[in-house]
Amino acid sequence: MRDIANALFEPIPSAVTEAFGRPVTPERVALGHKLFFEPRLSSSHIITCHTCHSVATGGADNVSVAIGHGWQKGPRNSPTVLNAVFNTAQFWDGRASDLAEQAKGPVQASVEMNNTPARVEETLRSIPQYVAEFGAAFPDDAQPVTFDNMARAIEAFETTLVTPDARFDRFLAGKDSLDERERRGLSLFIDKGCTACHSGVNLGGQAYYPFGVVARPGAEILPPGDKGRFAVTNTASDEYVFRAAPLRNVALTAPYFHSGEVWDLSEAVAIMGSSQLGHTLDADEVQAIVAFLHTLTGRQPQVEVPVLPPGTAGTPRPE
Amino acid sequence: MRDIANALFEPIPSAVTEAFGRPVTPERVALGHKLFFEPRLSSSHIITCHTCHSVATGGADNVSVAIGHGWQKGPRNSPTVLNAVFNTAQFWDGRASDLAEQAKGPVQASVEMNNTPARVEETLRSIPQYVAEFGAAFPDDAQPVTFDNMARAIEAFETTLVTPDARFDRFLAGKDSLDERERRGLSLFIDKGCTACHSGVNLGGQAYYPFGVVARPGAEILPPGDKGRFAVTNTASDEYVFRAAPLRNVALTAPYFHSGEVWDLSEAVAIMGSSQLGHTLDADEVQAIVAFLHTLTGRQPQVEVPVLPPGTAGTPRPE
Repeated sequence: MRDIANALFEPIPSAVTEAFGRPVTPERVALGHKLFFEPRLSSSHIITCHTCHSVATGGADNVSVAIGHGWQKGPRNSPTVLNAVFNTAQFWDGRASDLAEQAKGPVQASVEMNNTPARVEETLRSIPQYVAEFGAAFPDDAQPVTFDNMARAIEAFETTLVTPDARFDRFLAGKDSLDERERRGLSLFIDKGCTACHSGVNLGGQAYYPFGVVARPGAEILPPGDKGRFAVTNTASDEYVFRAAPLRNVALTAPYFHSGEVWDLSEAVAIMGSSQLGHTLDADEVQAIVAFLHTLTGRQPQVEVPVLPPGTAGTPRPE
Repeated sequence: MRDIANALFEPIPSAVTEAFGRPVTPERVALGHKLFFEPRLSSSHIITCHTCHSVATGGADNVSVAIGHGWQKGPRNSPTVLNAVFNTAQFWDGRASDLAEQAKGPVQASVEMNNTPARVEETLRSIPQYVAEFGAAFPDDAQPVTFDNMARAIEAFETTLVTPDARFDRFLAGKDSLDERERRGLSLFIDKGCTACHSGVNLGGQAYYPFGVVARPGAEILPPGDKGRFAVTNTASDEYVFRAAPLRNVALTAPYFHSGEVWDLSEAVAIMGSSQLGHTLDADEVQAIVAFLHTLTGRQPQVEVPVLPPGTAGTPRPE
């Protein structure tokens, strides 16, 4: 069982030194740490990256869909930031190829942080401590304080938000065992075909698949207006196609699916069985798979709240 | 100068072992730490104590007035949680006599967290880890998981949010000196009469005074509809009376006054001179006082984001 598992899955690496071809330096991580918690990246000055991607709650917000600027509801459930560096692409539809590109989205989205690159740059350039820290993080740039470098620094910080040492990783490494029910769950997870979409480091996050391969779930779970990756590729075969959800720490990230309408992990597993695999899993099978999924909860990152530099007379005020 | 200052002010104590007659135990602090960051204390599951009282930004939110449930604006600027344990009473109008009483207000306010005590208790009782931690924090209680104990645990955590070792404190202790402009600012602060309201540990927060003793500032700064402590005491002499703002870390907590309409500390100092003291401070005097006020920035607390326990099937969902 361990050999089969090691062929299908990979443990979480304990440190990441490069992300998408860009170096992860201590200066970029330190700056990105501040920016991840920086409310002045939003036009209201009250929304941060951490608002929806909280390390207190599995790297997500634990509500159905994100609530952003003006209390507007976003279209989809916030994906976890934890281990996101190991996903092949970001967002439910994979429209950002890396974390830096991802980070630029919510800052500008009118239903999220509702800001503009020009205003972000004006804000950061008005604060001497940020000017110094961008200079240290991007020493080769003539103008280090840019929207793109903001995103690169956030990306560098996010590479530290990984959760190694899950019981499953210790099992893969031969350092720990799974109990009988967890082993049965792993076995079912492999034999029933869950691994067709959920494999690799993140048990998901590595490719795109249609939601409802065998049977389309109800409209509350798969809203007909959200055609997933079709919006990115404009290709008919991508209708209702989504990036397979990464399952690391899934026990911490309810509610589930892109619509965030399923709160119970057992229900989510049962829906996957019927809609994706055409199997009606019985209650024992579901509970065994859920027990296995709980072994994917890793050591959560210890993150301090950064102390942010105060603004100056030139800092734009909240709108 | 140091002797006079020591007669008027007190340094921040480096640790607090009791708050308002209640013990500050490690178990209460650990529980309160989680609760301070707990979004499920709000009906939406997205607002926490830390949303408006962020240790990233001087213990406040750095916006004019708090934005809460449904993006509603609150009536007043969020006061800092830092060193709040040293205030004689809480809120701008002192309507809560201690931090535990204070903590119960925003959780229930419809424009803030919009929750009810019954729903908070149902939520916390549905999460086994909280049940265990309340039991450890309140071992003498038959039913430890109560709304009141939630507030007491938050109070215990908040007693750790103090900022010792400001340059001013080191000056008081004879361990550091102030430069010439800072000394002039301190001298003016005393001689012009600022200390009539701003003295003690927090240079404020210890008593109530009318805003506009000599000349009432404009309606944007002192909105006529907010009569301050009058709403608490229903006494005519308390119209437009507010708790003197504590000035610790004031350089980090713009914007200023209960209306939060003044963004520049120099402008705030000038307004205080004219409205409270009847002095038109010249630009040099204002800058000297501002330089002195910057020496009140203490060592900011290092606070980790707690990892919160996941909910169960019995946990109420966000509304």
